[in-house]
Amino acid sequence: MGKEVDVSTLEAGGARDYIDPPPAPLVDVDELGKWSLYRALIAEFVATLLFLYVTVATVIGYKHQTDAAVNGADAACGGVGVLGIAWAFGGMIFILVYCTAGVSGGHINPAVTLGLFLARKVSLVRALLYMAAQCLGAICGVALLAAGYSTGTGLAAEIIGTFVLVYTVFSATDPKRNARDSHVPVLAPLPIGFAVFMVHLATIPITGTGINPARSLGVAVVYNNNKAWSDQWIFWVGPFIGAAIAALYHQVILRASARGYGSFRSNA
Amino acid sequence: MGKEVDVSTLEAGGARDYIDPPPAPLVDVDELGKWSLYRALIAEFVATLLFLYVTVATVIGYKHQTDAAVNGADAACGGVGVLGIAWAFGGMIFILVYCTAGVSGGHINPAVTLGLFLARKVSLVRALLYMAAQCLGAICGVALLAAGYSTGTGLAAEIIGTFVLVYTVFSATDPKRNARDSHVPVLAPLPIGFAVFMVHLATIPITGTGINPARSLGVAVVYNNNKAWSDQWIFWVGPFIGAAIAALYHQVILRASARGYGSFRSNA
Amino acid sequence: MGKEVDVSTLEAGGARDYIDPPPAPLVDVDELGKWSLYRALIAEFVATLLFLYVTVATVIGYKHQTDAAVNGADAACGGVGVLGIAWAFGGMIFILVYCTAGVSGGHINPAVTLGLFLARKVSLVRALLYMAAQCLGAICGVALLAAGYSTGTGLAAEIIGTFVLVYTVFSATDPKRNARDSHVPVLAPLPIGFAVFMVHLATIPITGTGINPARSLGVAVVYNNNKAWSDQWIFWVGPFIGAAIAALYHQVILRASARGYGSFRSNA
Amino acid sequence: MGKEVDVSTLEAGGARDYIDPPPAPLVDVDELGKWSLYRALIAEFVATLLFLYVTVATVIGYKHQTDAAVNGADAACGGVGVLGIAWAFGGMIFILVYCTAGVSGGHINPAVTLGLFLARKVSLVRALLYMAAQCLGAICGVALLAAGYSTGTGLAAEIIGTFVLVYTVFSATDPKRNARDSHVPVLAPLPIGFAVFMVHLATIPITGTGINPARSLGVAVVYNNNKAWSDQWIFWVGPFIGAAIAALYHQVILRASARGYGSFRSNA
Repeated sequence: MGKEVDVSTLEAGGARDYIDPPPAPLVDVDELGKWSLYRALIAEFVATLLFLYVTVATVIGYKHQTDAAVNGADAACGGVGVLGIAWAFGGMIFILVYCTAGVSGGHINPAVTLGLFLARKVSLVRALLYMAAQCLGAICGVALLAAGYSTGTGLAAEIIGTFVLVYTVFSATDPKRNARDSHVPVLAPLPIGFAVFMVHLATIPITGTGINPARSLGVAVVYNNNKAWSDQWIFWVGPFIGAAIAALYHQVILRASARGYGSFRSNA
Repeated sequence: MGKEVDVSTLEAGGARDYIDPPPAPLVDVDELGKWSLYRALIAEFVATLLFLYVTVATVIGYKHQTDAAVNGADAACGGVGVLGIAWAFGGMIFILVYCTAGVSGGHINPAVTLGLFLARKVSLVRALLYMAAQCLGAICGVALLAAGYSTGTGLAAEIIGTFVLVYTVFSATDPKRNARDSHVPVLAPLPIGFAVFMVHLATIPITGTGINPARSLGVAVVYNNNKAWSDQWIFWVGPFIGAAIAALYHQVILRASARGYGSFRSNA
Repeated sequence: MGKEVDVSTLEAGGARDYIDPPPAPLVDVDELGKWSLYRALIAEFVATLLFLYVTVATVIGYKHQTDAAVNGADAACGGVGVLGIAWAFGGMIFILVYCTAGVSGGHINPAVTLGLFLARKVSLVRALLYMAAQCLGAICGVALLAAGYSTGTGLAAEIIGTFVLVYTVFSATDPKRNARDSHVPVLAPLPIGFAVFMVHLATIPITGTGINPARSLGVAVVYNNNKAWSDQWIFWVGPFIGAAIAALYHQVILRASARGYGSFRSNA
Repeated sequence: MGKEVDVSTLEAGGARDYIDPPPAPLVDVDELGKWSLYRALIAEFVATLLFLYVTVATVIGYKHQTDAAVNGADAACGGVGVLGIAWAFGGMIFILVYCTAGVSGGHINPAVTLGLFLARKVSLVRALLYMAAQCLGAICGVALLAAGYSTGTGLAAEIIGTFVLVYTVFSATDPKRNARDSHVPVLAPLPIGFAVFMVHLATIPITGTGINPARSLGVAVVYNNNKAWSDQWIFWVGPFIGAAIAALYHQVILRASARGYGSFRSNA
């Protein structure tokens, strides 16, 4: 605001102080031989799966409450509403782009991939593979929810919800990311907080949301009712499994794999 | 908080550690011969058009739902409410200032332009041209919506919605922006997430919001109902056209044009 | 997260890599002779006034709608709700701390001032003067609203609303701030967007919110109804007066005043 | 987005430009002799206590309003809703991770601690002690609320609410934090604003929320009703006690304690 004057002067008459990367080739054969492409495809698949799981769960939870409200207005008002649904979509894209930007570029959307392909930022082959991974991830994400509210749904929601949280924590505190961009740690609390926000929008209608065993224990100890104690195991087993899978995913797929490719070429 | 003491001591008794740019002249003839001025006017026009399109669509969607609620409270409660409308206005200004700050200064409002003119940050000529571009953009943005909910409205909403998203993606990952400010990539996920949030507020009442073909496909495959399949083309054609226009706008108008002005003056 | 290990090792066994500023004296006579103290008091007064004006307007708007809802649920649901009120308080503190941090430390609250005084971050004299300025500002902010919805209320709301927006724009693009902290421009769009969000929460129930003449013009031109045209002057005169006062406040009180104190002491 | 190509090339063929810290040992005897471990346990305990206090208060406030709505829809709609509850959980994690990241790593959740232990970021002993502190904190946080709405509840809410705000202010302006990461001050207004947002979600149903004596005074002076004056003392005594405890906690537990460990080992 108001600063543009200097910038435009610089551009109109002066040399550019930035470098445009060369356009990506249509087909990059080298790319097909690198683990980083396959890791990127896995990341796009997982991100789109989580995106659909969380957002569709939010929409389903909202519809359940709206239907229940035919005989009373309070349930409808208690639902997350269109505003909550809009937050679920926007907030998930925020945390998933944050988590996958360094691995796949964080597209999570065939239209975004098309735009970046047209601007020659990614090769045609990569663009097509990304779109396939995104579509497959989306189908799997919706399928995980389509079974409706059953006995296993609660445990699954706790596992996936905690996976989203702990995956975001690992992404935000990755030493690789920190080395390349010293500002990331400062911003880490924001996506972590948003991950918790998103998971609550999606899973409050399913389990009331645990994803934090200390919280579930605290409520059970103080209010001490039967229901809180009989369900207690779900709120320990689910989050612990979700956290373990997130640790595995981050250390084995996203991080450790890169180690095998270390060579003697300096990047100084 | 509490840090002011040092700052004020420095200022009261010491030299200033910053440089005030000289006041902008009332009429800057040089400015009129530069492409950067016209590019800035285009950016102000497009930003104000998008601002009005998204916010007025949100208000219209809210009113439709409120009217539908005469015979039942749930629809009204499901609408985005005054809170959602306030988010639409604030969130759009956030992403549009983010996207246009480096091109036009990101005013998007004649009152802001007036304030910056009075403080001598922009010339009188630029201020008047900005105000004209903003008013024209606002009129076009509202006009695009005024036709009401017709057959073409859904496709138009998908095109414009995806344009908003992909335009934000290009703005956030522009190498020019990154060179001047190394922090931008870290913050990129936030405006991208907000773009998705805003588009949902505006277009959930129109199309249920696609702007992501993978998502629309996933839902159609798993729930497999006729409606989802017969409308499927809209959720591929609309987003792909929107993404292509955004790529074109960014590469041809905002970026490529600057290349023609490269000269031998160093900016070191 | 997980990074603490290194940090604590460093602290427990190593030298500290930071400097604690010396405790502020109880009475700092020098301070009383400096313009920066009085500028800080003005900033605390203005910030607390704006804080109360916007938040109390939001609460009043909410109550009006709740009262109107005795015979119909839709109005109540359309109101901003407790969530909207909580956003108004939190969001205003965000933008006001952002705008005043460099001038007064951004307390805007006697409890915060007490805490910082107890930790010896500000002198007793400064703490007492801040508290007085905050209480006076709060009284004036509520008083501005207490007259209820009259003819002049709409114009006043447009003036104050646009003042909040343009004041935030000036704070976010201040060259002084940019020199001390190179990251500010990157973050500027966020408080600017929040300023727009906050003003809408407060003034939608009063005027429907203008603060942007281009927007009001666009709606009037396209929908072309009498009401939009007869009120149009309010949406040009109000924002232009608010923007002019903000430019004056920033350039004359907050910025220009510092110039008179330039001396030969280097701050290198 | 689109930047990944360079990154992956670098990784696949080049040396890594970051250092993975060595895995944490299962049992680190040294750690047990350091004050920093116990300080971290206190921080985890306090953070989990505040997390449960604020979020459970938000849920209780929501249920009170929903119950009151059996005979009228407006109260239910005025409540914070599922969206407000989701914000309370997400927002509290944002500010508590922000405040405790430099002291304990900001886990506040046994599942997060488990994930970081499995990735060998913390020792087994530290992980178990953290989990115990988190569970204890959660129980205490819920217990503080379980007494229901009594005479002392309002004062307690003002004390704890102001503690959350002033604790965030101290965390955001800590010279130690600023030295290690120069960006923190720029981001400080955001968590401070969120702290105010969170406290309002939790305490509007209890006291209408004060946590700012200037605000309570301004409303009492202008509206001048008996209730506002007779309760006025709560809105001065509560916030002042909360601010004093926060100053004490920060200066004595979190900061001053580190001083005793200064040694001659350089950290250059």
